[in-house]
Amino acid sequence: MSAVGGYCSWAEPLTDVERAIETVINQFHCYAVKGQKEYLTPNEMQELVVQKLPHLGKCVGPLDEKIECMGDPDEAKLEFGEYWDMMGDAAKGCRRK
Amino acid sequence: MSAVGGYCSWAEPLTDVERAIETVINQFHCYAVKGQKEYLTPNEMQELVVQKLPHLGKCVGPLDEKIECMGDPDEAKLEFGEYWDMMGDAAKGCRRK
Repeated sequence: MSAVGGYCSWAEPLTDVERAIETVINQFHCYAVKGQKEYLTPNEMQELVVQKLPHLGKCVGPLDEKIECMGDPDEAKLEFGEYWDMMGDAAKGCRRK
Repeated sequence: MSAVGGYCSWAEPLTDVERAIETVINQFHCYAVKGQKEYLTPNEMQELVVQKLPHLGKCVGPLDEKIECMGDPDEAKLEFGEYWDMMGDAAKGCRRK
């Protein structure tokens, strides 16, 4: 097992759910430029939401507010766990519709 | 916008990240039989991990322990938010590898 692009690789193919989780992980890495894959800034998170969650982002009014509350748009740090929680908010927001 | 199978549908196609989040949501609905899409039992969660996270499940030792700590394997209730958190644990577990 070896880590490729920050994600494990296995001999056998991943399941659909594993590929889905990998996709969500990879977006974090793609947008976490300033934090070198360790954190997102509010600006980077906002960019991700606009570009990658054009639909889900609409289900979740507070997502924008949460990003604003994170602090300095270019200095505050959103680590992977918090990013995953925000993706969960988007998922919950959409489930309730 | 209308909810289809518990997920919103839009005119334009979803992005890859939105489809990924939809996949993780849909697994919850698939396995949440007893709770009629509202919650998973520990047994159902364990079944999901074994069948759908054959690789990621290995990155996360405590996932099994967490499921065991949930209480009665057929009565305890794991709601969507807790399910999403556990998927996040699997994702974090793999990111560290």
